Amino acid sequence: MVKPMRIAVGTATVALMVGMAHADEGMWTLDNVPRAAIAKATGFTPDPAWLKKIQLSSVRLAGGCSGSFVSGEGLVMTNHHCVADCVAELSSAEDDVQANGFLAKTRADERKCAGIEVNQLTDITDVTDKVNKATDGKSGQDFANARRAALTQIEKECSGDDAAVRCDVVTLYQGGRYHLYKYQRYQDVRLAFAPEAGIAAFGGDPDNFNFPRYCLDMSLLRVYDASGKPLKSPNHFKWSKQGTKDGEATFVSGHPGSTSRQRTISELEFVRDKVATSYLFYAQERRGRLIEFGRENEDRRREAFEPLAGTENGIKVWKGRQQALADKEFFASKVKAEQELRSKIAADPKLSADVGDAYDVIAKAQDRYAQLYPRLVMLERMRAFDSELASYARLLLRAADESKLPNNERLREYGEARLPALKQRLANPAPVHKDLEIAMLTFSLTKLREEFGPDDAIVKAVLGKQSPDQVATAAVNGSKLGDPAERLRLFEGGKAAIDASNDPLIKLMAAIDPAARAARKAVEEEVEAPVEQAQARIAKARFALYGDSVYPDATFSLRLSYGKVQGWEELDGHMVEPYTTFAGVYERDTGAAPFDLPPSWEKAKDKVNLSTPFNAVTTNDIIGGNSGSPALNSKGEVIGLVFDGNIHSLSGDYGYEPKRNRTVMVDVRGMTEALRNVYHADHLVKELGVK
Amino acid sequence: MVKPMRIAVGTATVALMVGMAHADEGMWTLDNVPRAAIAKATGFTPDPAWLKKIQLSSVRLAGGCSGSFVSGEGLVMTNHHCVADCVAELSSAEDDVQANGFLAKTRADERKCAGIEVNQLTDITDVTDKVNKATDGKSGQDFANARRAALTQIEKECSGDDAAVRCDVVTLYQGGRYHLYKYQRYQDVRLAFAPEAGIAAFGGDPDNFNFPRYCLDMSLLRVYDASGKPLKSPNHFKWSKQGTKDGEATFVSGHPGSTSRQRTISELEFVRDKVATSYLFYAQERRGRLIEFGRENEDRRREAFEPLAGTENGIKVWKGRQQALADKEFFASKVKAEQELRSKIAADPKLSADVGDAYDVIAKAQDRYAQLYPRLVMLERMRAFDSELASYARLLLRAADESKLPNNERLREYGEARLPALKQRLANPAPVHKDLEIAMLTFSLTKLREEFGPDDAIVKAVLGKQSPDQVATAAVNGSKLGDPAERLRLFEGGKAAIDASNDPLIKLMAAIDPAARAARKAVEEEVEAPVEQAQARIAKARFALYGDSVYPDATFSLRLSYGKVQGWEELDGHMVEPYTTFAGVYERDTGAAPFDLPPSWEKAKDKVNLSTPFNAVTTNDIIGGNSGSPALNSKGEVIGLVFDGNIHSLSGDYGYEPKRNRTVMVDVRGMTEALRNVYHADHLVKELGVK
Repeated sequence: MVKPMRIAVGTATVALMVGMAHADEGMWTLDNVPRAAIAKATGFTPDPAWLKKIQLSSVRLAGGCSGSFVSGEGLVMTNHHCVADCVAELSSAEDDVQANGFLAKTRADERKCAGIEVNQLTDITDVTDKVNKATDGKSGQDFANARRAALTQIEKECSGDDAAVRCDVVTLYQGGRYHLYKYQRYQDVRLAFAPEAGIAAFGGDPDNFNFPRYCLDMSLLRVYDASGKPLKSPNHFKWSKQGTKDGEATFVSGHPGSTSRQRTISELEFVRDKVATSYLFYAQERRGRLIEFGRENEDRRREAFEPLAGTENGIKVWKGRQQALADKEFFASKVKAEQELRSKIAADPKLSADVGDAYDVIAKAQDRYAQLYPRLVMLERMRAFDSELASYARLLLRAADESKLPNNERLREYGEARLPALKQRLANPAPVHKDLEIAMLTFSLTKLREEFGPDDAIVKAVLGKQSPDQVATAAVNGSKLGDPAERLRLFEGGKAAIDASNDPLIKLMAAIDPAARAARKAVEEEVEAPVEQAQARIAKARFALYGDSVYPDATFSLRLSYGKVQGWEELDGHMVEPYTTFAGVYERDTGAAPFDLPPSWEKAKDKVNLSTPFNAVTTNDIIGGNSGSPALNSKGEVIGLVFDGNIHSLSGDYGYEPKRNRTVMVDVRGMTEALRNVYHADHLVKELGVK
Repeated sequence: MVKPMRIAVGTATVALMVGMAHADEGMWTLDNVPRAAIAKATGFTPDPAWLKKIQLSSVRLAGGCSGSFVSGEGLVMTNHHCVADCVAELSSAEDDVQANGFLAKTRADERKCAGIEVNQLTDITDVTDKVNKATDGKSGQDFANARRAALTQIEKECSGDDAAVRCDVVTLYQGGRYHLYKYQRYQDVRLAFAPEAGIAAFGGDPDNFNFPRYCLDMSLLRVYDASGKPLKSPNHFKWSKQGTKDGEATFVSGHPGSTSRQRTISELEFVRDKVATSYLFYAQERRGRLIEFGRENEDRRREAFEPLAGTENGIKVWKGRQQALADKEFFASKVKAEQELRSKIAADPKLSADVGDAYDVIAKAQDRYAQLYPRLVMLERMRAFDSELASYARLLLRAADESKLPNNERLREYGEARLPALKQRLANPAPVHKDLEIAMLTFSLTKLREEFGPDDAIVKAVLGKQSPDQVATAAVNGSKLGDPAERLRLFEGGKAAIDASNDPLIKLMAAIDPAARAARKAVEEEVEAPVEQAQARIAKARFALYGDSVYPDATFSLRLSYGKVQGWEELDGHMVEPYTTFAGVYERDTGAAPFDLPPSWEKAKDKVNLSTPFNAVTTNDIIGGNSGSPALNSKGEVIGLVFDGNIHSLSGDYGYEPKRNRTVMVDVRGMTEALRNVYHADHLVKELGVK
């Protein structure tokens, strides 16, 4: 059914379906790159050998990042923020790798990153027919079971008992295609180089998702083989000496995590008008509270640092999304794309019958979601109980309740397999800061009252005749859940221990638990289930119409994006140039965080070439998961290291907006110059072949 | 041109034009109430005598509120919050009228409210022909000048030299009609009764714009005549003894301030997606900062109280508007109304030619506004300089610059006539709190950097190589503008004194002034001027099509609204009942602000009838300026006192949304019960005729 329709539709409809005839759009699977479009946009046509090299030289960091081999001896390039956990683990008061950076003088000095696993994609096999055969004629739960069994069997046949091989069946086009991805796993990964956090994330929150940018967000790892020797990696990317020019073609190979570009207009409207604003109104006030809390003294500033950083990143992400969805042109392109797809479906009686009222079902579910959303967020997702102690209390309460149930009837996060991780979380010895806990719980209880009003049954149950401040103060001061031993005692004691506990936060969580569970259940049954089923019907029609003449939504599997070096016109009309230079970072240095350069850079000021390009932007279509991706020229040389997108790239979850969506990377010339003249890492420069 | 078209269109098009066939919609001028619609909705047809009585018994408080005569001896009913300034002025440490309330035992005890003027509308005359004759054939500046001259002359002829008479020509239908409103002015107004602020605004911010509600937001004033005797007021409303039942008809007469129901869709989208979110993101963080600042100690809590109250009210207002504009059904009704009007215009070649590209001009201006808006708000409107001292500095700087110009070339707020008020503001002896100033200036400078990025020229000029905290601390600590004498010295010293000043805040304001003025000028010239001209073209076509078969936008002139007692279904699906009772306020009393009942109410708990209705909601279409309006039954008896709308009423600026927009009032039975059994104001109960 698929193939003839695809041929009939032809390439001209790509633009029609997506609703925007954008060059540079798409996260393409390597077996199906749009060669004609690439040739037209870049003047270069990738051949199978070029693509094979891309595939074998690119790697995935199992934790959620991308990377690439950059020497024949297992050297892997990725971002500093992709190895942040390793850097933190290697840091101590005496040897602060985070603050001071790290450079292994010899291979013997390279230090193991215990948590990092590198995956190299060795084979891609189309297993669509196998899966379809297994599920043929089935529907509903039967279909889901048959499919799960088929995927498990295919993966098992692929990997056998080889622990060094990983096989995943990737579901593309919402089930239109199934591909088997076979990876080689490398678990002995060591740190060769990491700069100071101060230059890796220079500019902190103000510069996060912004450009011009001045970050050396890079690190170099080395993969070791089973015998403990540096891995031979004949497939690797050479570093370019020349770098790029404005307008030059750039290719990014990497592992975009997920996108939601097939969401319907009614879903996007809900995100724009309810989800984004609800989060941002809350997060902005939280940010104000945390900053002012931290202005009181240095201890408090430190206590508030982590929650503040998370809040500020969340604000950036959601502001970017909200702006994108509020952008008339962008939103109109989404509306147009949906209208076109719906017209095509309407013109085909069979598809029309299959899709049925799917769009209406989804729209109606959004209306219901608008009603359910506040309770889901405030109670089930704990926005009204913004406290670590309350989170521990919730975890203990539910673990006790859920553990009594058969494994397959539990809430999924309390399944048998998850319990060790939960226990580990409860054992976390990190101190809980009572002042901060009281401040945040007061804040969030005030939001609870604001959201539902003083007359709401839950609000009454929580506050009784007290103010949010009184309730929060009594609960935090009266709770013993700050003590890991007490938490573990309650965890081991199960339901009986929880029932016997007088801990005020456990009592509070117990009081709201029925309402929280009810909110979750209502959303699962009245929103998620009908939407998922309706989406599957639409996805099937879409694939019938377009097949793989378009790219599938991102799935944290290897994709190729093509584009070019290009600045953009900002909303206020000013032009943003595509490159920054070393001169800029020195100019930007104020000595006050987050614009304070580390000493190595201060010291090197007279030695570096100030006109060296530092960071750059390109039109490549990327998303979270692409962090650490190599940016390449048509010769397959590294011309940059992707580490971020600009604020407009946050629209990428919903669609590609070519005018302003930009990928942000460290220019290869900046990396070379820093390695050579700031860090004096001559052995690495030599290994990278840029001498 | 107008009349024939109006007749041709007929009444059936009312609903079509407004796009929603809502009963209960409209703020109708008293000379043009929709008698048939009222009869249909309420079963009662107002006759001229009934309307005349409404007109003469209703009053306007010149400061921006509504009220009504409620006895034959000049007693006027209005809100507590409408006499807040008077209550504050009458309060002292020994005699705290605000905290403890006020009840004049005898008329001799009634206390003068110096700032309150009561206006009674005695005559309405249509002067459209006169104005049109004066402006016939003129356009542009000629038209504006001729119209201004005509209005001035008509008003002057009306009032003559009688200072007790005020005459205003009211521009209705954006110029479709001109009516002359003649008022009797009363300036000897005294306070007879005001309850404690704690019950007048019970529930504070959490309950503001919400319902269920429990506020005795009432006061009683008495108007005295020129001879110092209580005014004889034969035209007045009697208080109903029975009050209302759920579903019963209610009429509200009062002075709605302004509405923007004729804004185009492109303007509403801009408000929804840019103005509302921009304000709310900022205000939420400001609120968080102020609350946390105030949690530190009692002094700080007091310092933060006023700015926090203003911010919280602003958040409520803008959240309500944002919610309304994000409501699919409401917004679709606005889209439909515009489409219908545009179709009618398109169908008429003459109108079509007159309106021309007005809609496109407005839409294009919004796109430009989106670019200019951040600089307008941050620089010209001082969002980036959130500091009283900075405001003083700006005022002094501009007063010095503007005073050198001829009066008619100055920025309008620095005209000759405004200078005394500016001087008075500078002389304000209220202390400036340095800690709060530093906290808020730090906050707002951080927002400046966030909005424009560290590379922006203004950001660089303001911050240089310092952090927002460093700049704010140095500027506030280094400024002498906290001293009224220093401010007056600089004001009197003019340009020379300002140029000679080294005050860091004056220097800061001077550094950004060219950019701030440029932002204002660009908005005036590229947005406001073209939009105003385009709106005038559309308004002319609208009046040609519909005439006064619809109601005009609010103009702070007397209007009648009809509706009924009715609860609503909240967004989350729960039903809100239309009445609250005294029992509810005792149940809600927690003893902790803002839910702490004053002692008089605690004491009266056993004496009051707990089932007495306290507050109520109706479907009447009101807006700011209606505060203090009487709610009446068809007999013209007071059944309530309007003091607020619910959160959904905030959509009223853009249109009337019948499902959830509700007027909030004190039920007359609640007022009577409180006067009788809480305050023992038997003489007033008797005067009101409810014994």
